[in-house]
Amino acid sequence: MPSSLKGAAKYLGKPGLISLGGGLPCAENFPIEELTIKVPSPPGFSEEETSKTGTTVTTGKYDVSNGSGAYDLSIALNYGLGVGSAQMIRFVTEHTEIVCNPPYEDWQCALSVGSTSSLEQAYRIFCERGDYVISEEYTFASAVETALPLGIKFVGVQVDSEGLLPNLIDEILTNWDATARKARKPRVLYTVPSGQNPTGATQGTARRQAIYKVAQKHDLYIFEDEPYYFLQMQPYTGPNSPPVPAPKTNEEFLKALIPTYLSMDTDGRVMRMDSFSKVIAPGTRVGWVTASEQIIERFVRHNECSNQNPSGISQLVLYKLLDETWGHHGYLQWLIHLRLEYTRRRDALLEACEKFLPKDIVSWNPPAAGMFSTNKPLTIAEMEDQVFLAAVGNGVLISRGSWFTAEREGFEAHELFFRATFAAATEEKMAEAIYRFGDAVRACFGVSNGGGDVEA
Amino acid sequence: MPSSLKGAAKYLGKPGLISLGGGLPCAENFPIEELTIKVPSPPGFSEEETSKTGTTVTTGKYDVSNGSGAYDLSIALNYGLGVGSAQMIRFVTEHTEIVCNPPYEDWQCALSVGSTSSLEQAYRIFCERGDYVISEEYTFASAVETALPLGIKFVGVQVDSEGLLPNLIDEILTNWDATARKARKPRVLYTVPSGQNPTGATQGTARRQAIYKVAQKHDLYIFEDEPYYFLQMQPYTGPNSPPVPAPKTNEEFLKALIPTYLSMDTDGRVMRMDSFSKVIAPGTRVGWVTASEQIIERFVRHNECSNQNPSGISQLVLYKLLDETWGHHGYLQWLIHLRLEYTRRRDALLEACEKFLPKDIVSWNPPAAGMFSTNKPLTIAEMEDQVFLAAVGNGVLISRGSWFTAEREGFEAHELFFRATFAAATEEKMAEAIYRFGDAVRACFGVSNGGGDVEA
Repeated sequence: MPSSLKGAAKYLGKPGLISLGGGLPCAENFPIEELTIKVPSPPGFSEEETSKTGTTVTTGKYDVSNGSGAYDLSIALNYGLGVGSAQMIRFVTEHTEIVCNPPYEDWQCALSVGSTSSLEQAYRIFCERGDYVISEEYTFASAVETALPLGIKFVGVQVDSEGLLPNLIDEILTNWDATARKARKPRVLYTVPSGQNPTGATQGTARRQAIYKVAQKHDLYIFEDEPYYFLQMQPYTGPNSPPVPAPKTNEEFLKALIPTYLSMDTDGRVMRMDSFSKVIAPGTRVGWVTASEQIIERFVRHNECSNQNPSGISQLVLYKLLDETWGHHGYLQWLIHLRLEYTRRRDALLEACEKFLPKDIVSWNPPAAGMFSTNKPLTIAEMEDQVFLAAVGNGVLISRGSWFTAEREGFEAHELFFRATFAAATEEKMAEAIYRFGDAVRACFGVSNGGGDVEA
Repeated sequence: MPSSLKGAAKYLGKPGLISLGGGLPCAENFPIEELTIKVPSPPGFSEEETSKTGTTVTTGKYDVSNGSGAYDLSIALNYGLGVGSAQMIRFVTEHTEIVCNPPYEDWQCALSVGSTSSLEQAYRIFCERGDYVISEEYTFASAVETALPLGIKFVGVQVDSEGLLPNLIDEILTNWDATARKARKPRVLYTVPSGQNPTGATQGTARRQAIYKVAQKHDLYIFEDEPYYFLQMQPYTGPNSPPVPAPKTNEEFLKALIPTYLSMDTDGRVMRMDSFSKVIAPGTRVGWVTASEQIIERFVRHNECSNQNPSGISQLVLYKLLDETWGHHGYLQWLIHLRLEYTRRRDALLEACEKFLPKDIVSWNPPAAGMFSTNKPLTIAEMEDQVFLAAVGNGVLISRGSWFTAEREGFEAHELFFRATFAAATEEKMAEAIYRFGDAVRACFGVSNGGGDVEA
């Protein structure tokens, strides 16, 4: 049900009305008079360029009533709407239209406090205790760990280098035995289509279309979790080939992106989860979801009785940066900048892998999107602990594949892999880390160092 | 269970370790280089004084590694710990020690994204579907509306001018008939001890001690929801008496505050919920809970798979203001300033009530804390709609008592009241609003205007 107190807001439109209704503090008593940020001016996005050509943007407490701005501290610091501020909702809706342009009328956006929270709310909207959700066999650990306390389990589907296999989803659902499983047929597919975590796999256009078809056949609702969508990188050309030229315009960039599920959602069966964590900063704790009006209404009701809405300070900083300073054009330029940044990082990690890992026992796929590359020694299960601890002993932390298993109870791993990120360390550190990891793997498998030298 | 990914953090302490483990973006790619706030310098807390003597505080991206600060943008903008940043946790823990000084060893604090979220998490930790929670008969609407979708209902306890009546709680629990109620005996008491919403009642010290004793007798766990604790005001002396002198020192101020449940919690049966919403600004979306180590561990696990942690930008702004600029001394000075602000506002509202409301049909209690004064026409139920709409018609929004009923199903109101806040409007607007409300009440009850004139 709608919140009684937030429902009273409908009367606030009456001209001249004085409200003694809601317990909103008076802006006078907010001890922050001004907030200033220094941000890059497109196209000079690097820290060095920003130190020279950056823009300084100041917000006052009463800019809106002074006519000097569309959002100010008196608004951002007070209670807000469960859907998010009008200012940020407008921006993310326009952005979603530019990128996804959903093919039905009544789609809407609502702000979230990040995609883990969106997902938790989506589980509570769509699932009941005892339900199964379908996902990649290895998936975002927090997606599973958020579901477990709600009594929701995962059915993992085997993947290839493009992720989820649609015929296997079809098979699982067609042969679903509710009695044997003690659970009704799954109604929800959770997927990370681009730069899947932890495998790094990205579903191509045809793969997405095929999966959407299976969803239609079995009336599955799709949770499209896309934190890495804008970390789709330039095609990987290998260590000795020239790189593919960068997109020259925003239009070229948008065309190079793989179509989203939302963009092919003729039925309104997709909730897309976007997040500023990977494209601006995780510390904003701001994301948004896009879905049909009915689903967004449920989502906002849930916001009202949990997190309420994202930090107004975060919303204000994002608005000032994205809308007022950069605009949509500048933001897309920033996303191209990020694409090239992550391409450079991935190439550095893969170069170190080529150089330092024993190819006879470790394999990897160059990722097309995201933050992760998966290293797969060619033997099974119980080595994981040994390799992980040997790697830590050698001074490198790398994530275990088993942390990401979708099915938790009684699951037996049939492959051993480790997830390395190219998002966090510098290029030199990445090379050093892969050198150390290679050493650890060699030691565990009793292979001598035939690879390169980190000093080289 | 602990989050797998967050659990890996324990290896990060190893000297020289390079992490390719977690998908943490590199600070280089955060497009905010500097953040500056302008804040009041104690004791000049008003907007006017701040415009002259305010302090300007700037945070850079790498202040910590440069040695120029204890918290910076590279940390605040990245992923954080579920418990909150070390910096803010230290501040709120020290503050809680100063104010509550809990009488047992292993108490801890954890940040929240606000008390509605804390409460939702607390319900999920302590209750199961079908459970009843005990509370004031009229209570914070969102507390009930957050519980309902979790299958949790309320047992409302009648109150007097000091709120909850301990003997009635004892009676309800002693006579609890699990079969008739189709629910086990309640284990949780939810209460807003100071400036209760909506009644405005504040429990005195003896009342709190008596309620704690009943909690011990029936092994009740107490959710102490205290958004208005620091809005305890100066004693109300009436329209023609001189005001009570303000506290001269922080020590005097702290002594004037009614002891918290946490301060008398010898058993570890209290979770106190604090929020910056009423004392700094709701838009920060930052609060904290204090409880025993075991409960805090559960709370943090829940954070990890929902909201993660409050906005890093909010945490940074609060830290820079509260710790670095004001310190605990300055923050207590600010809280004294707020106390006097709210005293002034309450007195203005009550003065307008004295002047404009028909005393033969409306009564009120001067609140000792909080934001609300309750106006109680001396007849029952079905008038509520009529008075509310007449008030809106007259240009004043005031909250209906029925929005706050604790027991929702089949509850029949046995009294009619409206909640007015003295937090939001200016003193002139409050007078105008009460004048309009008085008119609406008179019109509904067919009483002619024998009261004052708003121009007077």
